[in-house]
Amino acid sequence: MKVKIGKEEMGTFLEEVFPQIDGMFAIDHLDEDLLVMRMFSDEKHLRPGNTVSGPSMFALADVAAYVATMCFVGKEALAVTTHCSIDFMRKPEADKDVLAHAKVLKLGKALSVTDVLLFSEGMEKPVAHASLTYSIPPMKQVAN
Amino acid sequence: MKVKIGKEEMGTFLEEVFPQIDGMFAIDHLDEDLLVMRMFSDEKHLRPGNTVSGPSMFALADVAAYVATMCFVGKEALAVTTHCSIDFMRKPEADKDVLAHAKVLKLGKALSVTDVLLFSEGMEKPVAHASLTYSIPPMKQVAN
Amino acid sequence: MKVKIGKEEMGTFLEEVFPQIDGMFAIDHLDEDLLVMRMFSDEKHLRPGNTVSGPSMFALADVAAYVATMCFVGKEALAVTTHCSIDFMRKPEADKDVLAHAKVLKLGKALSVTDVLLFSEGMEKPVAHASLTYSIPPMKQVAN
Amino acid sequence: MKVKIGKEEMGTFLEEVFPQIDGMFAIDHLDEDLLVMRMFSDEKHLRPGNTVSGPSMFALADVAAYVATMCFVGKEALAVTTHCSIDFMRKPEADKDVLAHAKVLKLGKALSVTDVLLFSEGMEKPVAHASLTYSIPPMKQVAN
Repeated sequence: MKVKIGKEEMGTFLEEVFPQIDGMFAIDHLDEDLLVMRMFSDEKHLRPGNTVSGPSMFALADVAAYVATMCFVGKEALAVTTHCSIDFMRKPEADKDVLAHAKVLKLGKALSVTDVLLFSEGMEKPVAHASLTYSIPPMKQVAN
Repeated sequence: MKVKIGKEEMGTFLEEVFPQIDGMFAIDHLDEDLLVMRMFSDEKHLRPGNTVSGPSMFALADVAAYVATMCFVGKEALAVTTHCSIDFMRKPEADKDVLAHAKVLKLGKALSVTDVLLFSEGMEKPVAHASLTYSIPPMKQVAN
Repeated sequence: MKVKIGKEEMGTFLEEVFPQIDGMFAIDHLDEDLLVMRMFSDEKHLRPGNTVSGPSMFALADVAAYVATMCFVGKEALAVTTHCSIDFMRKPEADKDVLAHAKVLKLGKALSVTDVLLFSEGMEKPVAHASLTYSIPPMKQVAN
Repeated sequence: MKVKIGKEEMGTFLEEVFPQIDGMFAIDHLDEDLLVMRMFSDEKHLRPGNTVSGPSMFALADVAAYVATMCFVGKEALAVTTHCSIDFMRKPEADKDVLAHAKVLKLGKALSVTDVLLFSEGMEKPVAHASLTYSIPPMKQVAN
């Protein structure tokens, strides 16, 4: 399975389709086996106890699974989250970026399943583990 | 099982512990059987296609499960999300508030499990369904 | 949404397609709002501690979600489990039947999502809570 | 983190505590990084379409997560499944054994989280992916 969209092109594409998340995330690495996505540490993500909030970690896992799927299906396609299971296992460090390691486990005609591990940068053990399903609706026929 | 914290007191408590979410959520109803929590429609929550984003719906489900748990265990306790499974089933309407209906299915000594259905206000069918587990660590003994 | 297959017809259909589970399950109730499915107490389901095993409860939740979906889509269709999230909350009683209360939350063209609560017969509080996704592949065209 | 119970001792322990599953499962490999557990192909596990049933795959994932947890906590401890999220991604082959690759992602005082990938023997791509949480209740004090 080869990627249809590389790292730079995907970064530009994300800024176009999700302008509201601009500046929050960056793609560190992207190939057919692994996507590494970075969420910059930022006060907005914090919750009491000086840790990264659950919704921010969910947002990172969701964007990572989206990018990992889209790089295979191409920019013309749609992909909509239909399910996420996420385990929060350790407290992330507030002043560290969070890195998502995403692997597409299945890419079917209608569904993708992506495994995502989240790490506080520099920590060996994951802070969270997620599995996300994206629905990939059949593309509309475009008349020329 | 009786609630230890009522609707008004819980609203004040939430503003204290989560000042960053002030103005985003409100408690519509709170008794031992059901919590109804409202997320105000707001441009920040939107994503392409003019719909409420997945992370915003996750945030609402998470806060609702937290409040539904805390009203039974009391303000001295801690409660930390350890798991969430969420199914996104329908597209929420962008200009409608989203309502969470949360029911605590289990309240054990160490864990709570809460079922949450999310609705666009005025729609009969749910937009999402979540199950959240909160870990309730044993309280630290406070020396006087 | 009206059921296409009633209780008796569904019972016969299940025996045809899953002969290996004959005698384990029965349909107590089936209408458009709720399916109640019974798993008979049986030594095979037991595990140490004299309780019903996790895999047996999973099997009941899975069959209940299948029946709840099939009664709307009809016997010609296929339906394949793609996801299950299940929380085990209380110890079931070994000598009681387990009842599944299943509600279809979404029935789309390609996917159904079903909420299932499991009870030991006669107990008020659920022993487990599951959410299952079934994929409903497009039907093959049948030539006449 | 070192294992307290090795492969042979764990095999004997499993036969003692779960006599009803004797002959269904075997431990292929066990060290601190990975457990590989085998489910023998068997007509009992089959479902229509000549594939391994969902409940059988759930049972394998559950036993694998149990063994992967117990090898660290020791035989005196208890461990009870509290949650499983499982994605069924591909059809297993009926006449092949199914192998579970289990890794403990977190081992806390009260909870473990284990990631499990299931493969039909000889196939490169996983047939299912699961995440299981085990609750590890505090050990009863034994008076001598």
